[in-house]
Amino acid sequence: MNKQELTNILEEVKKGTVSIDYALKTLEELPFKDLGFAVIDNHREMRVGYPEVIYCEGKTLEQVTEIIRYMLSKNNNILATRATRQMYEAVKELQPNMQYNELARTITYRIKDIEQTDDYIAIVSAGTSDLSVVEEAKETAEILGNKVKVITDVGVAGIHRLFNRLDDIRGANVVIVVAGMEGALSSVVGGLVSAPVIAVPTSVGYGANFNGLSALLTMLNSCASGVSVVNIDNGFGAAYNASIINHMIIGKK
Amino acid sequence: MNKQELTNILEEVKKGTVSIDYALKTLEELPFKDLGFAVIDNHREMRVGYPEVIYCEGKTLEQVTEIIRYMLSKNNNILATRATRQMYEAVKELQPNMQYNELARTITYRIKDIEQTDDYIAIVSAGTSDLSVVEEAKETAEILGNKVKVITDVGVAGIHRLFNRLDDIRGANVVIVVAGMEGALSSVVGGLVSAPVIAVPTSVGYGANFNGLSALLTMLNSCASGVSVVNIDNGFGAAYNASIINHMIIGKK
Amino acid sequence: MNKQELTNILEEVKKGTVSIDYALKTLEELPFKDLGFAVIDNHREMRVGYPEVIYCEGKTLEQVTEIIRYMLSKNNNILATRATRQMYEAVKELQPNMQYNELARTITYRIKDIEQTDDYIAIVSAGTSDLSVVEEAKETAEILGNKVKVITDVGVAGIHRLFNRLDDIRGANVVIVVAGMEGALSSVVGGLVSAPVIAVPTSVGYGANFNGLSALLTMLNSCASGVSVVNIDNGFGAAYNASIINHMIIGKK
Amino acid sequence: MNKQELTNILEEVKKGTVSIDYALKTLEELPFKDLGFAVIDNHREMRVGYPEVIYCEGKTLEQVTEIIRYMLSKNNNILATRATRQMYEAVKELQPNMQYNELARTITYRIKDIEQTDDYIAIVSAGTSDLSVVEEAKETAEILGNKVKVITDVGVAGIHRLFNRLDDIRGANVVIVVAGMEGALSSVVGGLVSAPVIAVPTSVGYGANFNGLSALLTMLNSCASGVSVVNIDNGFGAAYNASIINHMIIGKK
Amino acid sequence: MNKQELTNILEEVKKGTVSIDYALKTLEELPFKDLGFAVIDNHREMRVGYPEVIYCEGKTLEQVTEIIRYMLSKNNNILATRATRQMYEAVKELQPNMQYNELARTITYRIKDIEQTDDYIAIVSAGTSDLSVVEEAKETAEILGNKVKVITDVGVAGIHRLFNRLDDIRGANVVIVVAGMEGALSSVVGGLVSAPVIAVPTSVGYGANFNGLSALLTMLNSCASGVSVVNIDNGFGAAYNASIINHMIIGKK
Amino acid sequence: MNKQELTNILEEVKKGTVSIDYALKTLEELPFKDLGFAVIDNHREMRVGYPEVIYCEGKTLEQVTEIIRYMLSKNNNILATRATRQMYEAVKELQPNMQYNELARTITYRIKDIEQTDDYIAIVSAGTSDLSVVEEAKETAEILGNKVKVITDVGVAGIHRLFNRLDDIRGANVVIVVAGMEGALSSVVGGLVSAPVIAVPTSVGYGANFNGLSALLTMLNSCASGVSVVNIDNGFGAAYNASIINHMIIGKK
Amino acid sequence: MNKQELTNILEEVKKGTVSIDYALKTLEELPFKDLGFAVIDNHREMRVGYPEVIYCEGKTLEQVTEIIRYMLSKNNNILATRATRQMYEAVKELQPNMQYNELARTITYRIKDIEQTDDYIAIVSAGTSDLSVVEEAKETAEILGNKVKVITDVGVAGIHRLFNRLDDIRGANVVIVVAGMEGALSSVVGGLVSAPVIAVPTSVGYGANFNGLSALLTMLNSCASGVSVVNIDNGFGAAYNASIINHMIIGKK
Amino acid sequence: MNKQELTNILEEVKKGTVSIDYALKTLEELPFKDLGFAVIDNHREMRVGYPEVIYCEGKTLEQVTEIIRYMLSKNNNILATRATRQMYEAVKELQPNMQYNELARTITYRIKDIEQTDDYIAIVSAGTSDLSVVEEAKETAEILGNKVKVITDVGVAGIHRLFNRLDDIRGANVVIVVAGMEGALSSVVGGLVSAPVIAVPTSVGYGANFNGLSALLTMLNSCASGVSVVNIDNGFGAAYNASIINHMIIGKK
Repeated sequence: MNKQELTNILEEVKKGTVSIDYALKTLEELPFKDLGFAVIDNHREMRVGYPEVIYCEGKTLEQVTEIIRYMLSKNNNILATRATRQMYEAVKELQPNMQYNELARTITYRIKDIEQTDDYIAIVSAGTSDLSVVEEAKETAEILGNKVKVITDVGVAGIHRLFNRLDDIRGANVVIVVAGMEGALSSVVGGLVSAPVIAVPTSVGYGANFNGLSALLTMLNSCASGVSVVNIDNGFGAAYNASIINHMIIGKK
Repeated sequence: MNKQELTNILEEVKKGTVSIDYALKTLEELPFKDLGFAVIDNHREMRVGYPEVIYCEGKTLEQVTEIIRYMLSKNNNILATRATRQMYEAVKELQPNMQYNELARTITYRIKDIEQTDDYIAIVSAGTSDLSVVEEAKETAEILGNKVKVITDVGVAGIHRLFNRLDDIRGANVVIVVAGMEGALSSVVGGLVSAPVIAVPTSVGYGANFNGLSALLTMLNSCASGVSVVNIDNGFGAAYNASIINHMIIGKK
Repeated sequence: MNKQELTNILEEVKKGTVSIDYALKTLEELPFKDLGFAVIDNHREMRVGYPEVIYCEGKTLEQVTEIIRYMLSKNNNILATRATRQMYEAVKELQPNMQYNELARTITYRIKDIEQTDDYIAIVSAGTSDLSVVEEAKETAEILGNKVKVITDVGVAGIHRLFNRLDDIRGANVVIVVAGMEGALSSVVGGLVSAPVIAVPTSVGYGANFNGLSALLTMLNSCASGVSVVNIDNGFGAAYNASIINHMIIGKK
Repeated sequence: MNKQELTNILEEVKKGTVSIDYALKTLEELPFKDLGFAVIDNHREMRVGYPEVIYCEGKTLEQVTEIIRYMLSKNNNILATRATRQMYEAVKELQPNMQYNELARTITYRIKDIEQTDDYIAIVSAGTSDLSVVEEAKETAEILGNKVKVITDVGVAGIHRLFNRLDDIRGANVVIVVAGMEGALSSVVGGLVSAPVIAVPTSVGYGANFNGLSALLTMLNSCASGVSVVNIDNGFGAAYNASIINHMIIGKK
Repeated sequence: MNKQELTNILEEVKKGTVSIDYALKTLEELPFKDLGFAVIDNHREMRVGYPEVIYCEGKTLEQVTEIIRYMLSKNNNILATRATRQMYEAVKELQPNMQYNELARTITYRIKDIEQTDDYIAIVSAGTSDLSVVEEAKETAEILGNKVKVITDVGVAGIHRLFNRLDDIRGANVVIVVAGMEGALSSVVGGLVSAPVIAVPTSVGYGANFNGLSALLTMLNSCASGVSVVNIDNGFGAAYNASIINHMIIGKK
Repeated sequence: MNKQELTNILEEVKKGTVSIDYALKTLEELPFKDLGFAVIDNHREMRVGYPEVIYCEGKTLEQVTEIIRYMLSKNNNILATRATRQMYEAVKELQPNMQYNELARTITYRIKDIEQTDDYIAIVSAGTSDLSVVEEAKETAEILGNKVKVITDVGVAGIHRLFNRLDDIRGANVVIVVAGMEGALSSVVGGLVSAPVIAVPTSVGYGANFNGLSALLTMLNSCASGVSVVNIDNGFGAAYNASIINHMIIGKK
Repeated sequence: MNKQELTNILEEVKKGTVSIDYALKTLEELPFKDLGFAVIDNHREMRVGYPEVIYCEGKTLEQVTEIIRYMLSKNNNILATRATRQMYEAVKELQPNMQYNELARTITYRIKDIEQTDDYIAIVSAGTSDLSVVEEAKETAEILGNKVKVITDVGVAGIHRLFNRLDDIRGANVVIVVAGMEGALSSVVGGLVSAPVIAVPTSVGYGANFNGLSALLTMLNSCASGVSVVNIDNGFGAAYNASIINHMIIGKK
Repeated sequence: MNKQELTNILEEVKKGTVSIDYALKTLEELPFKDLGFAVIDNHREMRVGYPEVIYCEGKTLEQVTEIIRYMLSKNNNILATRATRQMYEAVKELQPNMQYNELARTITYRIKDIEQTDDYIAIVSAGTSDLSVVEEAKETAEILGNKVKVITDVGVAGIHRLFNRLDDIRGANVVIVVAGMEGALSSVVGGLVSAPVIAVPTSVGYGANFNGLSALLTMLNSCASGVSVVNIDNGFGAAYNASIINHMIIGKK
């Protein structure tokens, strides 16, 4: 609610065309409307067509099903992350066109058309074992309305593979780098592109990897300057970030 | 070097208009030229007028002075971070217009004009003690050609202070959140804006803060989706990232 | 035993009205009676009607059953935390009115009436995934004789949801904040209420959450001053603390 | 602003006794007033006479002096924690009656009378080396208007010393336990009193103490149920918490 | 082999009653005998009748069975720790009198009589959940020829329970303290007895217990001076240590 | 491709014996060849006959099968590490002569003869529980064309066992030390041999072992100077390193 | 105070030879005497002639001086650990015969004769850099009335140095092993002696030593069974433990 | 002492040409001579001309001076690492030709000629701030008789700088990679060379670098297979390792 709308209500109260009770009810909601939370959300939704997102880990089968049932009733696109196959089986009962990506552990459903950006996000990953996170990022970026190019298995131990795909990486508006083990890929890519790089450490590895701590620290300490980092295995978060940036850029080329 | 240029050289070798020795030398450099590193760097420099950056920590007084002397000879703008006052005194001998920001610990010098963006980066911080990192971010963002708005002392313990400045925060293309102690500010801001948020944990705090670990983990685990993170106290890195994004967005409004 | 009682015994010894053997026996027990442990326990039990509490983790099925069988024989109310369903099945054999809360993993049984406080404890939580800890806190607080209001899903990423419930939160004598991931909710709530806040980090999250370490550090470093912290996932401990405080406050309003 | 006040304004608008401009200005501030932050703060201040608190660590001499100068101009009582002697020397220039507690590292100044509670807070500590934190807690509790009893050097290695002071500890409304090294004192005290216990781990110790981590973990894992914990060396926070609770309890005895 | 035995052999060589080949073979083994490893082992075995010990974790069923089969062939007493029931079933095939302690996870077999000490080792534990470690310590101490008194469930949260059993604890030559969670029991016991205390942290607990780290740090930082520590859950190691000390003490009383 | 080969192509272009199209195609691959990645790999492969290595952890059954199918089509020797038996069953369908080492979790297949070195690598391990890592190292070293001597169960608690095998250890060109728990073996061996020692910490142990952290830190801090370290449980990496060194040494004796 | 003494007092009260007031005063102290704290302490003091020990770290110069002044007035022997030279200078004013050991950082003073044991404690250390801890242990052990043999610079990197001193080590009743860096010495010694080994990790080292964590973990995970551990750099604690054991053993040989 | 020598002695005993007393004395020393420690050391010294090495950290000025005085008396070459300038000033008194490398913190002195290898060790480093470790490695490698090539400032953020120096790196027998911050250089180099790579993490960096932990974990988790790791900042250890390998390789080319 902007200043003009507020003035209008007050004038209508003065004129008597609006009752005090009605104005009261409207103004009581003012704090929240004035903070504009819903406005943001609606605006963002309209612009990028992004669905509500359900983080399924730690939720029961029943909770996930109820949330999705409600969202379907509101005609929302759906993205559920960290979903088990069992959850998928349950929600497919609600809507048979639900999609499940086993590797990404995502449930998606497109009830509304999603307008895609002209430019794309590149998702670059070090090894085959990181594919689960890559897929989560890809599913997220696509349902948020982004074109995506996936470039896998270009870890720094064989750096020529990376150079081979450099054109594709440099062509992106935003680059997501997914890497486990020592996570060095983010520094190398960060030094090769001018676009912002969002690094996702993965828990792929063993021993002194400490469930992704190794790659996380590497990425935070990256000697390349254009790199920022999200949580371990957080493919969703990286794609969400990348999508915000990608949608802000109009006609880069 | 593109395919056409390569074809041309081979044809000239065939015709004899180019000697084999010359062709040999050219082709030996092919890997590096083809990777085009200088091209990127030049391009970026032209576009954002950004200076070479010297990270002074761990370098001797002599090393810093020599690097800056060389850069002055190349007419570069200069940004030196983590610089001591003693380093500043030394390089001021080289060029009396060097500036020192005590709080930020930066040395800056503008020999070339820097074109500023129309839109601005917001730097939001929790407490007075975080100002050192805020200033480093500000100095960096400005010398990279960005307008900056600084909004300080809006920590979540008195959240109304934050709401008071919400318009300024929402008006930014990119938001940098600087916070120590528990670092909760990044999650709250992340939930209030649609722009990308770059979070900088600071080492401000004591005890279970563990030199910034607390704020770092908070920010990595942010329940708000549009937040990415840089290293503890890395005001420079956050501003560098923000600058890349800010320069990519043309005419947001 | 106070000084007067001790004097009396000595005088009776002197007079011969009490035998040395009897005095000896009495005085040998002096350390423990004088420390008055049982007295405390009895007093506390009478006042708050609180049951014995059994922490089931690490105990065998047999051990849990034996302890509860013994307590039933003493007509105690029962609260068993971290109980498996299998344990519940076993103790239901002893007493069919045992209750099991699957989410909270608690077994409860009320053999004695529990007088409730007029004022309530608010349990505020960030997300659906924290409900297990919320339920443990709720079961504990209720069987300790407290009224409880539960306010869930008000995480800081959508801070308007929190403000919506502010009256309920502010009406409480004590506020328990349950949050996983980055745990920022405790700082925000701590800045909004004048009652003591007891923060419970949960292990909800992944990656750099490190099984609740992230939320734990956040809460310990809270920039809001009225916040104290209990162990990760320790809904019971938070409620127990809150109950002590709630019972000490008489007629706040 | 409560519902009645809002109704009144609307009615005055309707009657024309208040101009739309005036109403507009009032209502624009509604979000913050309605959130009532200032209200809380004022209320709390009136009730406990507590001063603004300045956390000096990480602030420059100039920043601290400026903040205190401003607060003096508002006739506030003053409590500055983690203050150096140098800071004290500077602010004594502003007001010669400033007090400095070397051990506590606090600067205090009482311009307004502080009403004291009838009941007291007990501050119990393990060893002489913890006195710095004890003193910070004591200074804080007293300027917040609490009576305080300090019981030092009653570490568990000679547990009879603790029992000797048990009456004093049990007589308190709230007990603050300050302990470094292994921090076991909090569990023992927690098992001996019925009042809430706020535990402060200190960084006193060496080696596997890891700057207070040892005592912190001990206290978080306390097997005694009525214990909550604040940050390492956070004497201020413990006292602030204790003060809230102590002021809520009216006529315990 | 001692000096006298070596002299004897040389004299027999000189006299010709022993062939050079035989002496050679004997002397080739000298480095090991002279280092006295076997000597120690034999001596210790004779003195305390202690069996070979097999640490089963990480060994396959086959490996454990083969080791025990071999040891049976040498008429050794047997103590296998961290043994699964499946391992027990397998080795019972070899010798039906094998004993399995489910809680302790030990397999024991006494083929040789074990002489017991007159004095005893006290094993003191905090809670029921620590019983697994207590049992491992007890099985170990007994098969090493020690009398044992077990005093359980005397955690510091109800310290009167501990005082109740103080005579039994003080009567021991060596005291083993087994405690999880915050492990404070070791400091309290360490301050109450004059015998050496060997502390065993257990992994009992959750959250900030970090699998026993909490109790481990507590015990290492014990403010009571006579406490030394073994690995988390290492009931065997504590008992082994205690047994060495107990066997060295002759006629304490 | 070396300089001479490049000269040759250019001369053939000049002479017309090679078409520009053909030269173009060859030279387009130059960046990678000139960087020499393939060259290294081929050279190394020719010299040591080493197979492609597949790290199976985190890969799906399908991914592993596809990679191996492709490699078989190229007539490569095969080493797959961290392979489950299920994976083995699947790839045995492709080629019945595949070998599975249950303990090592390796799948191997020798289609090409592997020339063995004259000198050997010694693999020395502390306990039976480390055998899994020992076997991985052994399988790796052998398929890379090295003779191997395995010396197990020579942990420092019975150091005479180690001395007994000292000749075998000292005869090696490179020594791999595999040890869990406290990992002290690497320091002792490092002080006894003149060959380079590659230390592999294992996750064998419990409690304060923290999944191999203990042994890892021990090995990194080794007071013996000739020791370098690989990741926890990384038998493959140690053997790969050892193989490089062993193949570089020609005729040590 | 034992049962007999208590009976005596009561009988004297009955006979009138002791006044009720006198008995009252005596019995008021009973809880502590009955708990026997003073009894132990007195007993221990008589037996081992051990002084009160002052841990100086974290205490002010004034606190240390006051404590020592008081102890001198009670004719106690004195051991102050972690004392600075400045503290020494101050307490030398009180009593000129105070001794300061710079390396050990101990202040000692013998006012009472100390009876020495026949048997000795061996203090074995790895390197010259560990001498500070060795000296603290030595000063402690000696003032507690133990003979001591110090065996330094026998680290495992040159294990023959250790074997050279094996007789001295094996001759001890108790062995203290002091080692930094990787701390492997404790495992090797633990495997070579039959006496109890008390291991002291030191903070000597750098990098992945993490201030003694490396040696601490090594010692806790020792594969040799007779090893227990005290805190990092805690030479005092090790010697105190060793002294208890050494005094319990009568006529070992 | 080999078998033949042992046979000889026995035969001489038999013949009476050697007395039993003499044989006894010889055989008593057998364990140590047979283990041959001195032999190794001498052999190594003759082969690589390496000096005794003194690690100065934690040693007093007096200790360092005494050790070097003794070594000079034995005509040894000298390498002292982690030496302060003050130590250097002291030992220069003993021998004016001592050299001090301020950056490396090494004292060196060559009294004996050192034969250099034909092949060289490459020391590759990421940034200027790592030079201290590079210099320590260089000083060590050279005094151990190795040719060295130093390639600095080739961090992965500008990977073309690395490729520019690839020939020099590939020409080495062993490659030492020195890198702080995220340490990614070791993985990239490891993928580019066929020689063994010894990685040295440095403590250069800040924040989430945690004093070198970040680079250490990176290097341990390197996805390139030929990389092994030494302690943080351990330039000496890397060079020592490299020297062993370099001296074992004869005529690589």
